[in-house]
Amino acid sequence: MANFVHQKDLPDDLDLGNVVAIDCETMGLNPHRDRLCVVQLSAGDGDAHLVQIHQGQTEAPNLARLLGDENVLKLFHFGRFDIAVMQHRFGVLAAPVYCTKIASKLVRTYTDRHGLKNLLQELLDIDISKQQQSSDWGAAKLTDAQVAYAASDVLYLHRLREALDIRLEREGRTELAAACFRFLPHRARLDLEGWPEEDIFSH
Amino acid sequence: MANFVHQKDLPDDLDLGNVVAIDCETMGLNPHRDRLCVVQLSAGDGDAHLVQIHQGQTEAPNLARLLGDENVLKLFHFGRFDIAVMQHRFGVLAAPVYCTKIASKLVRTYTDRHGLKNLLQELLDIDISKQQQSSDWGAAKLTDAQVAYAASDVLYLHRLREALDIRLEREGRTELAAACFRFLPHRARLDLEGWPEEDIFSH
Ligand SMILES: Nc1ncnc2c1ncn2[C@@H]1O[C@H](COP(=O)(O)O)[C@@H](OP(=O)(O)O)[C@H]1O
Ligand SMILES: Nc1ncnc2c1ncn2[C@@H]1O[C@H](COP(=O)(O)O)[C@@H](OP(=O)(O)O)[C@H]1O
Repeated sequence: MANFVHQKDLPDDLDLGNVVAIDCETMGLNPHRDRLCVVQLSAGDGDAHLVQIHQGQTEAPNLARLLGDENVLKLFHFGRFDIAVMQHRFGVLAAPVYCTKIASKLVRTYTDRHGLKNLLQELLDIDISKQQQSSDWGAAKLTDAQVAYAASDVLYLHRLREALDIRLEREGRTELAAACFRFLPHRARLDLEGWPEEDIFSH
Repeated sequence: MANFVHQKDLPDDLDLGNVVAIDCETMGLNPHRDRLCVVQLSAGDGDAHLVQIHQGQTEAPNLARLLGDENVLKLFHFGRFDIAVMQHRFGVLAAPVYCTKIASKLVRTYTDRHGLKNLLQELLDIDISKQQQSSDWGAAKLTDAQVAYAASDVLYLHRLREALDIRLEREGRTELAAACFRFLPHRARLDLEGWPEEDIFSH
């Protein structure tokens, strides 16, 4: 159980398995304006790998390979944003994907609180701090608090998915969720390509 | 070039080919409240087939087979609504599908007018009347004006799709459109199953 910080890409010899949790930290919420600073990954084994993406950097071959690998399921929380940011930066659309926020919306119909903090609290009884969420992720050296925060965004996604999958199955919405996950990368493309606010399915 | 009116289902011996235009007329816009009254279909050959669906009717085997046939592309204009209504009535989710309204949104970014009347006017120079749109589609006998109106909603969808496909290709959005079309039946399911207004992909 450790947090590793890498520069510019994942190490060549790191194997994260077939289900990888991923999250991004950026300078803000506009993928065209705000650069990608950190990509966090975890195999669900208690380790978190942070990759610092440098100013102007447009390639990260190991990371890109993983994103595009059709045999690796990428777990996100609100993947719509992360997928768009990484597609914009590296030119690779992540697929296949799973999104714990969408799964939560499909089963936790008794609440409108689908933030990661809320999900982890209710489903796994884990408390994470969101204090570093708004901080300078473009800094050359991340603080310990930033590293711990970034790690906490990916460390529990495997267990969260398990809990959500049980609920999806119980409510008969597994297939509906799968359809949403299949479309999600394309929803992210629509964001990038000029339909960020518009619901393309509306009348 | 004729309009045919059938009762309760398509005739057993009617072959509409591999690309079938479909539209529905209902008692209103709420699929849970407003019953399906007429399903119009066309093979794109100038003929329109109207099927009157009777009060309380829950089966239409020939129509249902066509909706579910993975080798038959179903062409709609704003298919989200028609797909939901027919799924609700017959228990079959239409797939694969194409939606001229979505295609229009992806290529006609210079306007927000994506109604069928507008599309036919601009792309095919065809004028259709929308006068019968709000009329009593539950009547046992449809008026000539209703039949002509219902037919006009499916007669030109094949040509419209051709025109839109050329634009999608030109703008490099063919694949994006295909992804939207794949998700569309599931968007319709979300409407029926309790997420009619909510955008499941929103933050
Ligand atoms: N439009 C938006 N509004 C709020 N948060 C957004 C957002 N678009 C992307 N996000 C990001 O979505 C992530 C998940 O949010 P939540 O936990 O509330 O569901 C947050 O990232 P981080 O948690 O990686 O900092 C947040 O920054
Ligand atoms: N929320 C909504 N608002 C307006 N029209 C809707 C609608 N949901 C479904 N429709 C239907 O969508 C169809 C296409 O509309 P438009 O041509 O404006 O794009 C119309 O049907 P009909 O044309 O079959 O009567 C209309 O009744």
